[in-house]
Formats: sequence, C-alpha cells, structure tokens
Amino acid sequence: MTSWNAIDEAIGRHLEGSLEELGRLCAVPSVSAQGTAMRECAELLVNMLQARGFESRIIATDGHPIVYAERSGRSDRTVLLYNHYDVQPAEPLDLWESPPFEPSRRDGQMFARGVSDDKGHIECRLAAIDSFLEVEGELPCAIKFVIEGEEEIGSVHLPDFIRDHTDLLAADACLWEFGAVNVEGVPVQYAGMRGICYVELSVETASRDSHSGETGSIFQNAAWRLIWALRSLKGTDELIRLPGFYDRVIPPSERDLELLSALPDPADYHHEHYGIEGYLKGIEGGLDLRREMVFVPTCTICGLTAGYQGEGSKTVLPARASAKVDFRLVPDQRPDEVLVQLRAHLDQGGFTDVEIEWMGGGPPGRTDLDDPFLQMVVASAEEIYGTPQIIEPITGGSGPNHTFLHDLGLPVATAGIGYPGAKAHAPNENIVIDHFVKGAQHTARILTGLAEM
Amino acid sequence: MTSWNAIDEAIGRHLEGSLEELGRLCAVPSVSAQGTAMRECAELLVNMLQARGFESRIIATDGHPIVYAERSGRSDRTVLLYNHYDVQPAEPLDLWESPPFEPSRRDGQMFARGVSDDKGHIECRLAAIDSFLEVEGELPCAIKFVIEGEEEIGSVHLPDFIRDHTDLLAADACLWEFGAVNVEGVPVQYAGMRGICYVELSVETASRDSHSGETGSIFQNAAWRLIWALRSLKGTDELIRLPGFYDRVIPPSERDLELLSALPDPADYHHEHYGIEGYLKGIEGGLDLRREMVFVPTCTICGLTAGYQGEGSKTVLPARASAKVDFRLVPDQRPDEVLVQLRAHLDQGGFTDVEIEWMGGGPPGRTDLDDPFLQMVVASAEEIYGTPQIIEPITGGSGPNHTFLHDLGLPVATAGIGYPGAKAHAPNENIVIDHFVKGAQHTARILTGLAEM
Repeated sequence: MTSWNAIDEAIGRHLEGSLEELGRLCAVPSVSAQGTAMRECAELLVNMLQARGFESRIIATDGHPIVYAERSGRSDRTVLLYNHYDVQPAEPLDLWESPPFEPSRRDGQMFARGVSDDKGHIECRLAAIDSFLEVEGELPCAIKFVIEGEEEIGSVHLPDFIRDHTDLLAADACLWEFGAVNVEGVPVQYAGMRGICYVELSVETASRDSHSGETGSIFQNAAWRLIWALRSLKGTDELIRLPGFYDRVIPPSERDLELLSALPDPADYHHEHYGIEGYLKGIEGGLDLRREMVFVPTCTICGLTAGYQGEGSKTVLPARASAKVDFRLVPDQRPDEVLVQLRAHLDQGGFTDVEIEWMGGGPPGRTDLDDPFLQMVVASAEEIYGTPQIIEPITGGSGPNHTFLHDLGLPVATAGIGYPGAKAHAPNENIVIDHFVKGAQHTARILTGLAEM
Repeated sequence: MTSWNAIDEAIGRHLEGSLEELGRLCAVPSVSAQGTAMRECAELLVNMLQARGFESRIIATDGHPIVYAERSGRSDRTVLLYNHYDVQPAEPLDLWESPPFEPSRRDGQMFARGVSDDKGHIECRLAAIDSFLEVEGELPCAIKFVIEGEEEIGSVHLPDFIRDHTDLLAADACLWEFGAVNVEGVPVQYAGMRGICYVELSVETASRDSHSGETGSIFQNAAWRLIWALRSLKGTDELIRLPGFYDRVIPPSERDLELLSALPDPADYHHEHYGIEGYLKGIEGGLDLRREMVFVPTCTICGLTAGYQGEGSKTVLPARASAKVDFRLVPDQRPDEVLVQLRAHLDQGGFTDVEIEWMGGGPPGRTDLDDPFLQMVVASAEEIYGTPQIIEPITGGSGPNHTFLHDLGLPVATAGIGYPGAKAHAPNENIVIDHFVKGAQHTARILTGLAEM
C-alpha cells in the first residue's frame, strides 16, 4: 500500500529541485513555429528521462522529432502520458515582465514561455515519478511518454506517428498533455474535444495590384471575390450553408446536459475579460450558453488580408485576398468531409476561383463518460482538491485526442496545472506553484489508481 | 512675335542646368506621408522662384505649407500653374536600381522619387519660363504658381486654401500638375476626373481577440460582421446597393463617346501588365471598355484587415476588423451625399456597429470640352508632338481639379511629361529626358497661346 504521506512529503521535499529542473527546461527556447532549439530540448528530455531509469530515445518524424520513453512498474497496467516540448513564440517580447526564456519566480508563481504549456505539465509528472522512485523504489504502473514537438503548430505528424507505432504505444489509458482548475479553483475533467478543419481561402485576380481609379470598374477585385465567397458560407443567422454540414451532428445526451448544467456560468468572465455585452442568437447564459459553446459546430474567420492595410488611404485594387477560416466540428463530423463540402459549395456558387488550402485539423473525440479510468481520475481529485473534478463532456477547443481515442483505442482523461490566469499563448505565461504541487499529488493518485484498476 | 526657334534653342541650351536643378529638387526627400524635409523643399522652391523674379512665399496651412509665387507678363492674361512638391514614400527601397533620393541618369532617362510626380513637371515649367526670360526678357502672360505639399496624401487642406484665397488666385485658366503621353507616345488631354469618397469601415465586437474554440459559437466575430456589411454594399452583379447612389449619374454625351472611341484600346496593356484574361460584365474591349472605365461609378475594396495574417494557422476570433473602401464618382455625384447614403444603408441593414471613418475625397470635375483654353492646349501640342492631344473626356482617377473648376471658375487643362512607364508611385520612378524637352516646348506654346487668347 502506498503511503500517501510519504509520497506527498517527497513531492514537497523535492519541490525546489523540480522547479529548478523546470527552469532549465523552460530556458530552452523550443519554439516549433520558428524551429529554434528543438533538438536541444528533445535531447534534454531524453537525458532527464534516462536519469530516472526510463528507456528513452528521440524518434524522427517528417517534422520536429518526438521523444519517446518507457519504464515498467509494479503493475502491468500501462499509462501513456502525452505531452509536448514545443512552445508558442514569445512575441511580443516587450510585454513580458521578465524575459520569456529566463524563468523567474515571484509571488508564488513561476513565469516563462512554456512553463504552463506544456513543460510544467511534464515536470509535474516527473515530480510524481520521482516521489515513487524515492519512496517505493519503483513505479506503481508502467509509464510510456510521448512528448511531441509540434503541438503548437497543429500536431501535423503526430497522428501518422501514432498509427505507425500502435504496438510500441500499447497501453491501458492516456493522460492528456494538459489539465486545469477552473476560475473557481475546481479541478476540471475535459472528457472530449471538438474537431477542427482549418483552411486558408485565397483568390488571385491579377498578377499585380492596380490603381482603383483606372481599373475599379473593369477588373475583378480579389477582395470582393473573397467577401462574396465568404458570405456564401454563413449569414447573419449564423447557419453554415455547406450542404450536408449538419448531417452528422449528434445532439447532446441528457447526461451531457446535466454535466453542462453543473458548470459555472462564464458570462461574468466573458463580460470582464472581453467586454462582451451579449451573445449570438440572444443567448443570455446558463445551460443555453454552455450547450452552444461546445455542441454546435462553427465557422470562424480567424483572419482577413487584402490590399493596403497601413495608415491613411491608398487607392489600390488588390490582386490577392485571403482568409483564414476554422470550422469547429462536433461528433460525428469529419474534417475531410467538410473540405469536400466546402469545395462543392464554392464551385456551386461560382467561386471556382477561390482556392482552398488545408492548414490542418482532425475529427472530434470524446471519452466515454462511464469509462472507469476517466471516473478514477475524476474521483481521485477529491483527496487533493477537496472536490472531485467537474466534468466538461466536451470542450470547445480541439487537439489530437482523436488519434489516441480512435487509433490506439485508449480512454483519454485530463489532470494538470493550468488555470484561467496561465496566459498560455500570451506574454507572462505562468503557473501557480501550489497548483504544481497539487498536480503532482493528483498524478501520483492516478498512477496508483490505474495500477489498482 | 515669339521666335520659337530661339525659345526651343534656349530650352535645349539650358537642358543640363534644368536637369541639375531637378536633381537637387529630387534629392530633398519631401515625403508628405512621413513629414520629412517638407519645409526644406518648400524653401528651396521659394528660392528657385525668387531667382527667376517671382514674388514667392510659403503660406501655412493646417498641414504641410503651400508655396505661392507670381510674376506678371507681357499680356495681362494669367495662368495658374498647379503643382505639388510632396512625393510618395520611396519604400520598398531594395527594389530601386539607384537610391531614390540620389537622382541618377542613364539611357536617356532620369530616375528619382518624385522626378515624374511631380518635381519634373515643376522643373519643366521653369525651363519654359527660363527660355522666355532669356530670349524675350519677360513672360508672355502672368503666371501664378500654387505648389502644395499634400497631393500624395489627399490634398487635405488644398480646397480650403483655394476658397480662402480666391482673390489672390484669380486667373484665366489652370494648367494641371501633370500631363502625359500615352502608350503610343501620343499626348493626352485629361479633361476631367472622377470624384472619390474614401472611407474606412471598422467593426469592434470585443475588447480583445479570443480563442475561436472557446468563443466561436457565442461571440460576434468582427470579421464576419465586416463581411456581411460589405456584402450588403455590392453583389457579384457589381451594382452598388446604396439607395439613391445612381440618381445623379449623368450618362456620357455623344461627344464623350466619340472621344472615347478615338482612344487606343487598353486591353493588350491590361493583359500584359496585369495578366488579366477578361473584364467584368463580359466586356471585351473598345468603346464598351472605355465607357465602363470612366463613366461608371465604383465601389472598390482597397484593403481588408482582421485577426491573424501570418504564416500557418492561428485559431483566433478577431475583435476588430476593418476595410478601406473607395467610391469613384461620376458627374454629378457628390461624396458628402454618398457618405450619408452609406450610413443610412448600413443602419437599415442592421450594421449600426460598423463605423465609417471619412478618409478624404472630393466631387468629380470636368472642363467644358469646348473651352477655348482647353482647345488651345490640345491644338498647340501638334507643333511639338506632330499630333494634337487626344482627349480623354474624363479619367478614372481623382484629384482636386474640382476646386479649381468650381471654386475658382477656371478651365483646367493638362500637358506634361508623364508616360506609362513612369512608375510614379513605385520603385524606379523616372522621366524620359526627351519628354522633358517636349514638355517644356509645349508649355512655352501654352503660355503664349493664353497670352494671345
């Protein structure tokens, strides 16, 4: 029987060492979008894992390499820990209170690019591992790490890696790369994610821009073509016009709605943080809002670019225009089908000149709410946080959980050290050190919980 | 009687001096958009004009100052020469074959920012003036110069200046700041300009951008709002939806259509220069094309900006979006009325959240095709170019000609040294030195022609 007093004491005793190691990890600027220090960071992780008795190695992909590691445990149950060592770009640098790659501690927090997303999660798991190795001399269950280097750029090569290594990655359950407490400090179980289909739509109507006075009446304007094409995708009623788009949508179950009802109302946060006065479709908050946030597919324009964008005026007729668009998909929509629907719809509307570039995506994925691993993770939080996790049956965001769910057949659950103030993709990214300690303690319960399942 | 041999010889004899002075003028980087060296350039011009016996001074405006100068002549007829000393920004600098503010001569051309637009035109007029002063000791007619410093940023303060100085600027005719030969080397009379109403439309739906996964189903997206608002202005039929927009449009006269028919077909140029395969509305070329280019009002999107515009993907829901839009207006449309129509139309469509910022503009303006000054300028070209000017009854572009036409009551005519290869707003702006000589000779005929009218 594990002595939780001893485990928790070991986590506390080694906290300084854990944070120092986390600092070294965060000092490596492994920005995947810029390709900096990726190999260096992967090698550092391999060394850190080998030092803990893991068999660890770097596995090449067509993009940034993946760090793989495994170590057996007392039980033959195996948990697959998914993490990533890449981080978001640190820009804009002038908004950081301390340099992004010089980790800094103040007021019970630690600040650095990647300290929350996702290096703090890696270190938190290592802290739990260290405590078992010190107190018990072994792990309660076998652990496999998959630490990728492309999460921040869409996990481009991860699904193929997973599908090419199903034997190597065989496990009983997957613990997701992140987890969090909510705005009220309550730990959250994210039991699923929406899918995504991210495209860039572009139009080119001439080989160069022209003078609007000379050509405004006679040349096709790429910006107008783009606007008309986009308008054909969605109107002010927010309904997406692609034929068949909603055919596969599964409405939420009674259980889903019960879980959503138990979640706090984000309306105050939205109002304070974004200055939002009201929601689309006249929704005011509560269950209606929660349901709309995650069980409805979307078509979001993420960016628009055409012609002159500087100060003042320039009378130019743009030869090129483009839009970045993401479709968030709910079960059982599929991004490949949306792509086909989009092309057909544009062609049908006369927009054969609008090109579609696939920028990445994946299908939605949900873990069965009755899955025993998920339930164990939820319940084991209570000893640490004083309350079991509350369950979000599916989140609005997207990620490669589908490949673990569908290609490896694993239940995927979340636990971790994120929180609403983490500023994960922004300047002054941080963790609260108390969250780190609790996260390590919870992780220790999860490892033992799986061993005993 | 003026001896044209003596005048033309004097122009030729002083050509090197004229070009050297033009070089000094172009070396002053008077970029109005950036506010550099504006006073320095104005003072240089005052000195240049005083050296030629003009009473010359700088007149302040709420923006960049205006250079005013006058000198009497043999006749009491007076021509108002409108020019501007400001130039476009020189960027992108790396595309210049010689530095933009270090004038360079090669292959019978002179290269510098502003050498064509508009400093070469100023110097060309001075070359004609110099020849009269040397050969005849006096000017054939009185000359008033208005040389503004804000042409490249919309002549913001020029109309007020004109209206505030109608007595000072009293004259018999106005010679416009530019003129040109066309792609076939034939001199062109631009007898009018379309008006313009330039606006920036912007939408703000939240105080900051949000994560599309969290908010895509529930927040207003500024980019979508902008697209829906823009789409309400014009559809793929190219018809502008503002109620009343076309009410004041005067169709071209038979005379206008005859003049348009005599112009060369620009289709080959458009194809070669812009890679255009076809025109809007199925127009193929000839009179239909020429008519559409100048006698039809437009609504051009000049720029679009929203959200993420970099490489790859970012899942952001933009809080702000904006579009730069110009309306080109034909007689007798008015920009102030278009602004009112635009606001009313957006409000009517539910787009009260779309803000309109007026970026500048002015009404269309045409000189009577039978005006004797215009006819004299047209006819006097023949002695220089071997052909009278061909007349474009109105051009597609816009400018402040309306204030000279309507506020001063002057006929406005064009003659000058531009040509299709001048790259006026682009890197490697240039003039052909032979055009400069011909332009000075033509200007000399115009000054004498007005004196004898």
